[in-house]
Amino acid sequence: MTRTVDLNADMGESFGPWVMGTDAELLRVVTSANVACGFHAGDWDVMATTMREAVASGTGIGAHPGFPDLQGFGRRRMDLPHGSLRNLVRYQLGAARAMAAAEGGTVRHLKLHGMLANMASADAAMARACYQGALDVDPDIIVMVLAATAQQDAVEALGCNWAGEIFADRAYNDDATLVDRSQPGAVIHDPELAGRRMVEMVAAGAIVTESGKRIPAAVDTICLHGDGKTALDIARSVKAALEADGVTLKPFAGRVGKVSVQG
Amino acid sequence: MTRTVDLNADMGESFGPWVMGTDAELLRVVTSANVACGFHAGDWDVMATTMREAVASGTGIGAHPGFPDLQGFGRRRMDLPHGSLRNLVRYQLGAARAMAAAEGGTVRHLKLHGMLANMASADAAMARACYQGALDVDPDIIVMVLAATAQQDAVEALGCNWAGEIFADRAYNDDATLVDRSQPGAVIHDPELAGRRMVEMVAAGAIVTESGKRIPAAVDTICLHGDGKTALDIARSVKAALEADGVTLKPFAGRVGKVSVQG
Amino acid sequence: MTRTVDLNADMGESFGPWVMGTDAELLRVVTSANVACGFHAGDWDVMATTMREAVASGTGIGAHPGFPDLQGFGRRRMDLPHGSLRNLVRYQLGAARAMAAAEGGTVRHLKLHGMLANMASADAAMARACYQGALDVDPDIIVMVLAATAQQDAVEALGCNWAGEIFADRAYNDDATLVDRSQPGAVIHDPELAGRRMVEMVAAGAIVTESGKRIPAAVDTICLHGDGKTALDIARSVKAALEADGVTLKPFAGRVGKVSVQG
Amino acid sequence: MTRTVDLNADMGESFGPWVMGTDAELLRVVTSANVACGFHAGDWDVMATTMREAVASGTGIGAHPGFPDLQGFGRRRMDLPHGSLRNLVRYQLGAARAMAAAEGGTVRHLKLHGMLANMASADAAMARACYQGALDVDPDIIVMVLAATAQQDAVEALGCNWAGEIFADRAYNDDATLVDRSQPGAVIHDPELAGRRMVEMVAAGAIVTESGKRIPAAVDTICLHGDGKTALDIARSVKAALEADGVTLKPFAGRVGKVSVQG
Repeated sequence: MTRTVDLNADMGESFGPWVMGTDAELLRVVTSANVACGFHAGDWDVMATTMREAVASGTGIGAHPGFPDLQGFGRRRMDLPHGSLRNLVRYQLGAARAMAAAEGGTVRHLKLHGMLANMASADAAMARACYQGALDVDPDIIVMVLAATAQQDAVEALGCNWAGEIFADRAYNDDATLVDRSQPGAVIHDPELAGRRMVEMVAAGAIVTESGKRIPAAVDTICLHGDGKTALDIARSVKAALEADGVTLKPFAGRVGKVSVQG
Repeated sequence: MTRTVDLNADMGESFGPWVMGTDAELLRVVTSANVACGFHAGDWDVMATTMREAVASGTGIGAHPGFPDLQGFGRRRMDLPHGSLRNLVRYQLGAARAMAAAEGGTVRHLKLHGMLANMASADAAMARACYQGALDVDPDIIVMVLAATAQQDAVEALGCNWAGEIFADRAYNDDATLVDRSQPGAVIHDPELAGRRMVEMVAAGAIVTESGKRIPAAVDTICLHGDGKTALDIARSVKAALEADGVTLKPFAGRVGKVSVQG
Repeated sequence: MTRTVDLNADMGESFGPWVMGTDAELLRVVTSANVACGFHAGDWDVMATTMREAVASGTGIGAHPGFPDLQGFGRRRMDLPHGSLRNLVRYQLGAARAMAAAEGGTVRHLKLHGMLANMASADAAMARACYQGALDVDPDIIVMVLAATAQQDAVEALGCNWAGEIFADRAYNDDATLVDRSQPGAVIHDPELAGRRMVEMVAAGAIVTESGKRIPAAVDTICLHGDGKTALDIARSVKAALEADGVTLKPFAGRVGKVSVQG
Repeated sequence: MTRTVDLNADMGESFGPWVMGTDAELLRVVTSANVACGFHAGDWDVMATTMREAVASGTGIGAHPGFPDLQGFGRRRMDLPHGSLRNLVRYQLGAARAMAAAEGGTVRHLKLHGMLANMASADAAMARACYQGALDVDPDIIVMVLAATAQQDAVEALGCNWAGEIFADRAYNDDATLVDRSQPGAVIHDPELAGRRMVEMVAAGAIVTESGKRIPAAVDTICLHGDGKTALDIARSVKAALEADGVTLKPFAGRVGKVSVQG
């Protein structure tokens, strides 16, 4: 059986004169790009460039909406009513769709950014408000969720297309939550180890926890980063290890409904 | 022969806690609404409400992009490169399309706001950059232009759908430019007079200048305002006068190519 | 013995083309103005006008910093680190001081706005971070606090000048907290009643609760509003009632240290 | 006779998560820092850090106000009324003064940023509006002007303290304007040449043009940059060359009135 998985990373996080990230390098590694939409990062010019490069490289394009908080990069908690969150996602997704279309591309997926994502991973009603905003604009969009969190509960309840995401560089507890960053081993810094872990999780169709427990999960895409040499090394190592294991790297197709244990 | 014309006004110009305009009253008068897109006015919540109301009233929906200048309401000159203007329009149109779609509506037209419009009415290359941005997103969109200005030159050159606009409350010079506001009679304050003039221009398919000269023009839509009692009175008077003259008020269909003198 | 009290209200809450509030009317009633500093409302032009009017009317001028959240008017919870809150207050106070000085005035006091104030009234460490930022810029500034809240704990701990504030239009519980808005009688809508209550509390030097209990408090200033006819009527009624009772209305002098029972 | 000159550079141009510039390196070279004030770059946190570092290194601190245009970094032409420019400078200077004071420093000078500076160097009335805004806040502030431009005309007319600035890396025409960037030799890339030129101009108290002409000028400070290795190399070379020539590098004292030829 052919196994496939997607590799995703955040992109287009520059703003005006300020450059962030290593988009060109990442585009050689990932199969899906989450593009900032101008609220926590990105602007109309940055988005145009990012979409052009993503189209040119054949990368799957996603909208990456965040809180309206440029100075805080969308990483600060903000409390918005659900109706406003829904509108916020509609707006940013619409902008992303236009920027992609104008460069010959299509927004296939949506992933929440920063604190908006963090809050939604613990609050299914909030996640649902955000995702409903996206579905109001495009009923076929694939919602990327943090596997085994309230984000997944939300897409299962909505019955929409979705894809489950795991982290290449974070250790998991036995309840599928992330090991707290304050604990030793919580963050993986060794590219080789990261590669090995991802091969194992993709093969198992499961999150493999620190204790070795396997939690069947929607392992559709792996979250990579491009900030700094270590992150890029991990990204490249994960790609190489998966390819060496015979895994095909390509944009996720999306799934509907509850996770069933894979193969 | 049945004559028709469209009545348009700017809407959705509130922002956050600040209310502007009399959208509810205007929606009873106009057939097309130009909706602010969040850069000079409007925000994700204001846009959602405005789109909902426009859809409910059957009003034709337009995107009304402006300069990225909230404090100046897009009324201050800013110099952006043409590529950035194109991206700016793409972004705002995309946001408007999503906000409209989520409420069951469709963005039919695009009209530039404020100083962006003023500059484009005197600079066909700049107008073209803006309009190209819109066409990159939606090749079928109807571009609303100030009749007989460089805006019109731009749409004729682009070969896209467009509609010509005249002012209900401004006097015209014999070269189709507006009489300077410093001149007596430049701005029409008399609702009855405004109504009479519009009936005459729509019947003639021409701009009728102060001297009485008739300049054949694309009289597809009439620009109305809702700021203050006088503006609303003019809007209502124009509507009543046109209806009394047997003119059908409905959203413009759009035209392609050069203006030919209407029958 | 001559009793005095200050009447304060928020002002300068317009932004760009959007007008908010009835500053001119309020300036005839209040003795202190809390001027928005450009983050949740106000801008450089609005501030210049507001400072000019406050100076002309002899009103005590205060800086009214808020969260960096224009669209939400600073009414949404945001989580900023204490160091950033301190910097945020420094910045806004500095801007206010310059705008006042340029019009011949002086910023005498500081009052937190909206959700920043709400959060600080329940979190003394957060309040202290904000107030420390103000004192870093002006060690003599008078910090206006919600009487008998964590805001007051913070100024007492800091040993700075402060003034205690009570509400003209809110009922109090026996622990000096506000009666929840969902309860009947929580908000006072009757101008005559508001006036009578303020006369009683100023005379008593105490918060008088719904049950009639008197909690000795720093009744240095009374918070009024100007949004809507009822609010202005309450403001005027409170002023008239206090004057009729022989109370002198003037800007607070500020106090240092713990509250002792008055009179 | 002891000759002295100041070396200045722009700093604090990071924003939120985005880093710009090499402030730490520049602070080892310059004697004056122009600190962005949050409108075109910088924010409350960046300013606090920049002020702290400038105070620690004994660098003269200046406010560096710009247009309200973060995405365009204040480099785009914007047309604001003179009254609004005055208010804009007041506001930003006030914020800078507070941020400096809170870290134990003082804002000594003011320099306009980007397109605001460019426009003011060709429009004395506009320059005067900006500088008046600064003087309204601090009558003793030293206004840094581009020598022999309309900026200088403005400070001479105002009778305020000022300091004249020349460029380390730009060639001059015989009318004291800069050689257009499109011309060969317009921009100096050779650190050694830049150093030699600055030694010559400081010794002469004059701008030395491409043709060798000497235009007596207020050579009070030299503008350096820190963006990229070449810029830093030029900055260091200029510093070393001046010191080798016996010139004392220290913050300018400011001057009043017209330039007289230096001895």
